[in-house]
Amino acid sequence: MEHEILKGIKSPADLKQLDDKELPLLAEEVRDVIVSTVSENGGHLASNLGAVELTIAIHKVFNSPDDKIIWDVGHQVYTHKLLTGRYGDFGTLRKEGGISGFSRPNESEHDIVYSGHSSVSVSTALGIAAANAVNGKKDYAVAVIGDGALTGGLVYEALNNAGRMRNARLIIILNDNGMSISKNVGHLAKRLAKMRSRSGYYKLKAVTEKAVSKIPFVGKRLADSIFKLKTNVKNLMYQSNFFEDMGITYMGPIDGHNINQMCNALEGAKIINGPVLVHVNTIKGKGYLPAEENPSDFHGVSPFDVVEGDLPKSTDSFSEKFGEFLFNQAAKDKRICAITAAMSLGTGLKNFSEEYPDRFFDVGIAEEHAVPFALGASKSNMVPVFVVYSTFLQRCYDQLLHDCALQQTKMVIAVDRAGIVGDDGETHNGIYDTAFFNGIPNITVYSPSCYADLNNALVNSLYHSDGPSVIRYPRGKEPQMPDGYSCNGALFDVFGDENANVAIVTYGRIFGEAYKAYNKLKSEGINVKLVKLNVIVPIPEEVISSINTAHKVFFFEEGVKTGGVGESFASVMLEHKLSPEFCLTAFPDCFVKQGKTESIFKQYKLDCDGMVETIRENL
Amino acid sequence: MEHEILKGIKSPADLKQLDDKELPLLAEEVRDVIVSTVSENGGHLASNLGAVELTIAIHKVFNSPDDKIIWDVGHQVYTHKLLTGRYGDFGTLRKEGGISGFSRPNESEHDIVYSGHSSVSVSTALGIAAANAVNGKKDYAVAVIGDGALTGGLVYEALNNAGRMRNARLIIILNDNGMSISKNVGHLAKRLAKMRSRSGYYKLKAVTEKAVSKIPFVGKRLADSIFKLKTNVKNLMYQSNFFEDMGITYMGPIDGHNINQMCNALEGAKIINGPVLVHVNTIKGKGYLPAEENPSDFHGVSPFDVVEGDLPKSTDSFSEKFGEFLFNQAAKDKRICAITAAMSLGTGLKNFSEEYPDRFFDVGIAEEHAVPFALGASKSNMVPVFVVYSTFLQRCYDQLLHDCALQQTKMVIAVDRAGIVGDDGETHNGIYDTAFFNGIPNITVYSPSCYADLNNALVNSLYHSDGPSVIRYPRGKEPQMPDGYSCNGALFDVFGDENANVAIVTYGRIFGEAYKAYNKLKSEGINVKLVKLNVIVPIPEEVISSINTAHKVFFFEEGVKTGGVGESFASVMLEHKLSPEFCLTAFPDCFVKQGKTESIFKQYKLDCDGMVETIRENL
Repeated sequence: MEHEILKGIKSPADLKQLDDKELPLLAEEVRDVIVSTVSENGGHLASNLGAVELTIAIHKVFNSPDDKIIWDVGHQVYTHKLLTGRYGDFGTLRKEGGISGFSRPNESEHDIVYSGHSSVSVSTALGIAAANAVNGKKDYAVAVIGDGALTGGLVYEALNNAGRMRNARLIIILNDNGMSISKNVGHLAKRLAKMRSRSGYYKLKAVTEKAVSKIPFVGKRLADSIFKLKTNVKNLMYQSNFFEDMGITYMGPIDGHNINQMCNALEGAKIINGPVLVHVNTIKGKGYLPAEENPSDFHGVSPFDVVEGDLPKSTDSFSEKFGEFLFNQAAKDKRICAITAAMSLGTGLKNFSEEYPDRFFDVGIAEEHAVPFALGASKSNMVPVFVVYSTFLQRCYDQLLHDCALQQTKMVIAVDRAGIVGDDGETHNGIYDTAFFNGIPNITVYSPSCYADLNNALVNSLYHSDGPSVIRYPRGKEPQMPDGYSCNGALFDVFGDENANVAIVTYGRIFGEAYKAYNKLKSEGINVKLVKLNVIVPIPEEVISSINTAHKVFFFEEGVKTGGVGESFASVMLEHKLSPEFCLTAFPDCFVKQGKTESIFKQYKLDCDGMVETIRENL
Repeated sequence: MEHEILKGIKSPADLKQLDDKELPLLAEEVRDVIVSTVSENGGHLASNLGAVELTIAIHKVFNSPDDKIIWDVGHQVYTHKLLTGRYGDFGTLRKEGGISGFSRPNESEHDIVYSGHSSVSVSTALGIAAANAVNGKKDYAVAVIGDGALTGGLVYEALNNAGRMRNARLIIILNDNGMSISKNVGHLAKRLAKMRSRSGYYKLKAVTEKAVSKIPFVGKRLADSIFKLKTNVKNLMYQSNFFEDMGITYMGPIDGHNINQMCNALEGAKIINGPVLVHVNTIKGKGYLPAEENPSDFHGVSPFDVVEGDLPKSTDSFSEKFGEFLFNQAAKDKRICAITAAMSLGTGLKNFSEEYPDRFFDVGIAEEHAVPFALGASKSNMVPVFVVYSTFLQRCYDQLLHDCALQQTKMVIAVDRAGIVGDDGETHNGIYDTAFFNGIPNITVYSPSCYADLNNALVNSLYHSDGPSVIRYPRGKEPQMPDGYSCNGALFDVFGDENANVAIVTYGRIFGEAYKAYNKLKSEGINVKLVKLNVIVPIPEEVISSINTAHKVFFFEEGVKTGGVGESFASVMLEHKLSPEFCLTAFPDCFVKQGKTESIFKQYKLDCDGMVETIRENL
């Protein structure tokens, strides 16, 4: 498809020049670009397809970047990128050095903040609106948020604060596709579903069209009409719903694929005093049949065949294996329950959820709640296993400390996507959990290198521990392990000459790279040993004696350097009066941008070649 | 006052033997113990006085510990302690080795979990109720939560999950004293106030009395009556309120100082299927006039004169000074706004809030929201200063990473109560922020030793930084500084002989102790230097050259050891090929229990004597 209209749009100002007939054609072009690009690069498909008309309406009505649009998470931001001057570069989506799949201020003045974590947008938009009010600025702050993000308590905190800021020019657009909430996540979902099915927008439309017609007039006449309209519009709102309880004026539901209707509603929202929520119904996957029919599977995808609509499947991953191992334990032990925060598919828990629905709890995007909930379950004779992505686990740092470590809760925290995640970039890398667990007392942290280690860590956590255990494992599959490697359950393993004067120390999946480096150095006649930590917090004290012959210690870590395991290792060595030369390679004081995982390892010298180079340079 | 009834109560079973006339007398005795003990030991007074009758009713109706009572935060737990066998030890309240001011499982089987952080109770109780349902247990899980805690998003996540668990025997008791929410915190507070003022409980009482009378009967008759009653009770509920929106059956409001009425209501709640919320109106400070009249000031108090009701006041504290310094800057710079999470009094912001109300934002117990809200404000030309206790800052770890560090938000995070807090114990010590900031990229962390350093850190953060800054300072007042000390604004200061072969390195308020130790050692002829870090994250690289003559380095840290600043320091030394003997004294892998700060310093060898002893032992 030619993208004749889209090509001409360098900024939202160009969009505003289009007439009503061109807009649906533009939407078609946008969908074409999204489907073809995502099928090649991977990315978030279904949610972006649902937000095409909504985004067009937003940029018609608001004046970005004076009006500031905050996209929650950013699963819905592709159309926004295409309409704000990034059509030409869109082929680089999610590639190294290319366009991000999320909102990124370093790309465009229209991307106000970095986004990647859920349920934040209303807080940020409220901050903008509050500051605008203080500064006497009339610009709007707009938060665009999906229904799934409403399960996060952060939104509630923001709504509760917004409700009393009557002078805030805050407009919250609820992009409700009724899909990001899986069927069992929260009572509010039911309420939304009821609201969604009501029709009320035609009357609303009439009123707001009248409102819009008045906008050019200023002074008293405008004020009068606004007053009257406010009352009228107000009468059309659904009283006594959740949002009204929170003090937010509710408008909706609006047809999210009807651009005119949305423009009218948004113009109406601009006239209302105080915070407004506009409820927009959209269809996830809209316009691409396989995604419409199967929106969950097409939420985040790897490259796929557009014509067939077939998604590649793999069971060779830490996530799938963890799901399988946990399933096997749960079959034997009825005390085991699984908890996920809206990530049952990504974490391999599908089988568990189907076979043991009464012991499976999807709490929604509510990581904070998950941990004290698990604490409660543990107090009533269950053994909870909370399976969560590393980057989202950050949400419950306090609960891990207060409701898990302090309580010595017997539970397992399975940290998926620990380490570099690749294409999703700086908001999603799981390279901080090593450091933050390091500073939490009384937690044992396993960092398995392969599936056998993973299963061993799970069994140890379930049956050889009275307190909390963490098992962190990466996205993707296990590395090539040494021939004949079998997990022996030790806290650490040592490979090579016990008297070697060069030691490599590492943990997790990059052990695979370290083992290659170790072999390469050995083949060059360098007397080297390799230490693989299986438990990384606390550092097993016994490991120190295994490196006491080393004059040089090279530590490689797939995690942040400061506060991480390598630094603790250095300190433990020094305190044991060992003071070899020490070289620590980890992620420095920065955020790691998107790129293929291998490429990032290469860049930060965490692949075999980089390790060898670092060691050679320091011999 | 003699405590004749209270003396006889060794467990809730004894309470159940009392007749209706004895209960008000018991309440009187309990109040007497609370007022006299708190006036001597300090503690939470007003909230505990409000919950006396409520607690009596709870232990009359429920069967602890089979029914599990979860006290949110624990500001209201004193009566519970007195009724569960701790009357005899109550004089040790908040003293070293004594009874804690919060729920502590190591004290009693009736204290189910450690509590200290807000808004967690519903999650924990729901976990218990969910597990009970899986295990076919008929016991109840009861969460007792104040109205202030409702401003935390964690509660919303729990309510949203509870709403769909129809088989959960979960009873939430809202102890609404209308006071913990200060006047401007959240729209929901307004709603509650409206609900509070309605009267509906007399009818409810009649119905529930009928219900209770049926309880002894079993089988079909009970089932029938429950069915009927459920419908009846349901009709008395207030429809369309926030809790009903979340799927929680609402009962109330109940007079929280009428034991009979509460017993009836709670018995009624037990019969209703699915989660129930019982709304109880209490008076904060009830029974002690100065506290009733001035409940905010009597929320948490130091020892005071019972007869006069006068509270000691001090302006000599880091908190008060920070408030003063910030006020002074705000007077000159209209971009500065202050954000607090329900802690405006404790953090010295009273003057700010009164003088600059439009630039003062109390977001409620919503630390997570505070950070992205600040991000938004910064995007609209304000310079936000978020003032928060260290232990509660843990709530927004993810936001500090995602919405602050990553965004390079120009903002100041003022971390009050950093370090040991003393009497409040393990749930409140601020000894983790050093480690967790250590692992977050792109943040500068100041740890001032005295008021002059504090002001310097604030000025630097406001006017010599483009990104986020953290200023962490302790509870209490500045230590004795060296004669003639004046803050010169450097990243670190060095005292003593530059060629000394023994170096002490430290930061924050314990510099005061270290300086005493340094003088003592010098007076003994030991050639020692003392390094005071003013910026602790990142470690100023230049400091390394200032210790390169030292053969022995002693690092003293008022924070957790693992992942902390001392370990980073060790690693930086090793990487700079310095390998002195290194001795790191910090808090080990444990939680630090309640006690006077000086006593804890002594115990962990962070006072002058301990430091000298450690150094002498290792010379």
